[in-house]
Amino acid sequence: MFTTTVIPSFGDVDGLGHINNTVLARWFEMARNPIFRIFEPNLNLSHDVWRLIMAHTEFDFVGELFFEFDVELRTYIEKVGTKSFTVYQEAWQEGRLCVQGRAVVVHYNFKEGVTTPIPKDKKEELEKHMIPKVPKVPKNEPYETND
Amino acid sequence: MFTTTVIPSFGDVDGLGHINNTVLARWFEMARNPIFRIFEPNLNLSHDVWRLIMAHTEFDFVGELFFEFDVELRTYIEKVGTKSFTVYQEAWQEGRLCVQGRAVVVHYNFKEGVTTPIPKDKKEELEKHMIPKVPKVPKNEPYETND
Amino acid sequence: MFTTTVIPSFGDVDGLGHINNTVLARWFEMARNPIFRIFEPNLNLSHDVWRLIMAHTEFDFVGELFFEFDVELRTYIEKVGTKSFTVYQEAWQEGRLCVQGRAVVVHYNFKEGVTTPIPKDKKEELEKHMIPKVPKVPKNEPYETND
Amino acid sequence: MFTTTVIPSFGDVDGLGHINNTVLARWFEMARNPIFRIFEPNLNLSHDVWRLIMAHTEFDFVGELFFEFDVELRTYIEKVGTKSFTVYQEAWQEGRLCVQGRAVVVHYNFKEGVTTPIPKDKKEELEKHMIPKVPKVPKNEPYETND
Repeated sequence: MFTTTVIPSFGDVDGLGHINNTVLARWFEMARNPIFRIFEPNLNLSHDVWRLIMAHTEFDFVGELFFEFDVELRTYIEKVGTKSFTVYQEAWQEGRLCVQGRAVVVHYNFKEGVTTPIPKDKKEELEKHMIPKVPKVPKNEPYETND
Repeated sequence: MFTTTVIPSFGDVDGLGHINNTVLARWFEMARNPIFRIFEPNLNLSHDVWRLIMAHTEFDFVGELFFEFDVELRTYIEKVGTKSFTVYQEAWQEGRLCVQGRAVVVHYNFKEGVTTPIPKDKKEELEKHMIPKVPKVPKNEPYETND
Repeated sequence: MFTTTVIPSFGDVDGLGHINNTVLARWFEMARNPIFRIFEPNLNLSHDVWRLIMAHTEFDFVGELFFEFDVELRTYIEKVGTKSFTVYQEAWQEGRLCVQGRAVVVHYNFKEGVTTPIPKDKKEELEKHMIPKVPKVPKNEPYETND
Repeated sequence: MFTTTVIPSFGDVDGLGHINNTVLARWFEMARNPIFRIFEPNLNLSHDVWRLIMAHTEFDFVGELFFEFDVELRTYIEKVGTKSFTVYQEAWQEGRLCVQGRAVVVHYNFKEGVTTPIPKDKKEELEKHMIPKVPKVPKNEPYETND
């Protein structure tokens, strides 16, 4: 697990008084830096060396986030495949789990324009950060959506 | 279907030369305004009148988006439930489908803190914008993730 | 003058019910695309061809912007120098001028790492969009700051 | 002086490989939280208690910011007036000053719709964070704009 803390800003709050859902896309992306550094320690974005491309992201908003308190972001690996892997992330505030997110990242050679297998050493490094089991979170009132 | 067009900006482009994935969260949110207006035509965000809360969003990046060309956003309703509904959205550029997205929106009474059934007239209005069937998009090379 | 219209999104609204000040940085950047196209019609961001770098931006918030209405962005050239030029921009909503902004853009050769004179034909093109005189806007109550 | 550190994210980088200018608007806003807390320690954005409105922001980009390294934000007070004050801010990376910014903040009563004098105790608190003299920064090559 990687953890990092973000401070909400005035403009992250929306007209209803909550941290806006789109902000989580930015926060979780920032919290994926340690994963990116497994593949490219210097975060060099040149097409010659960068090997990752985002294929899917998702966000489950299970509790409200507010302006006043810091937010802790937790980042895990949920699954490692041959050519892609899944990052699982959480945003916590004041001891409450507020957002669960996933990102499917594909291993890709930009110069040749083809997906490529994740090297064995990178797989092993990713696997050190596996979450044993993603928690099923009982959703609070506003977020009971399976009606 | 609702359609609207956005113009990418310099800062929307990331270090690899593509529109960054987090930008889509903002664009799709903007394109949901016509859906929001079904419930509150004046977009008044007061807790007394606003009735919608976001429970889930997801994004499938099936093609690259670039700086140079306008992007067309298409917004449909995929499902209408008792207390929530699902918005399905697409981003198109130069005739190519580049992103598919979903947002699960819950009908909620902020004053009383409870989910409430979607009124019949709102349901009927939503159903006018149903997509018959969400297309299964054959993913391009970088995005083949079911390895 | 170049004009373009943007639709505010739910998340652009801050906790006080106004469009957040940071959103204007994005909107004005988008509205500078026609200026950028004078220098690079295809908006190709390669270091070989792109010639512009941002040295200064500023924003005067003279009226409040709200969620409900479209915003018209107006873009002019205020000054053309030897190696830089100043863009002047306005955001209007419902007939009210709400934000005035400036951006100082430097003509720069990224490959050689030096500022370079703006070519004569580009200067002439910029000068077609000069604003005769930037209006002094009487500020509304909240924004009278020369106390 | 208040200091805080931010971690650049993948999407903060623009197509030229630098942190995009619009990102600084967000970062500096976040770094103003300690100033906001002088006026409202709980950051409660209710119109009944919140007293601050943004009248002006500006940014001088004096050096390039990159993805790889953390950014230190430094926040000072430059001037305290009767009804408004000026925040001065800097963004540093790897020992280099990269951005200087200012924000003019007005003391405002949202309920009554009028500017109001800054209370004496708040003034005294602000003055504890005064910068003696804002440095004149010799600009690097790309940013010599006084041609």
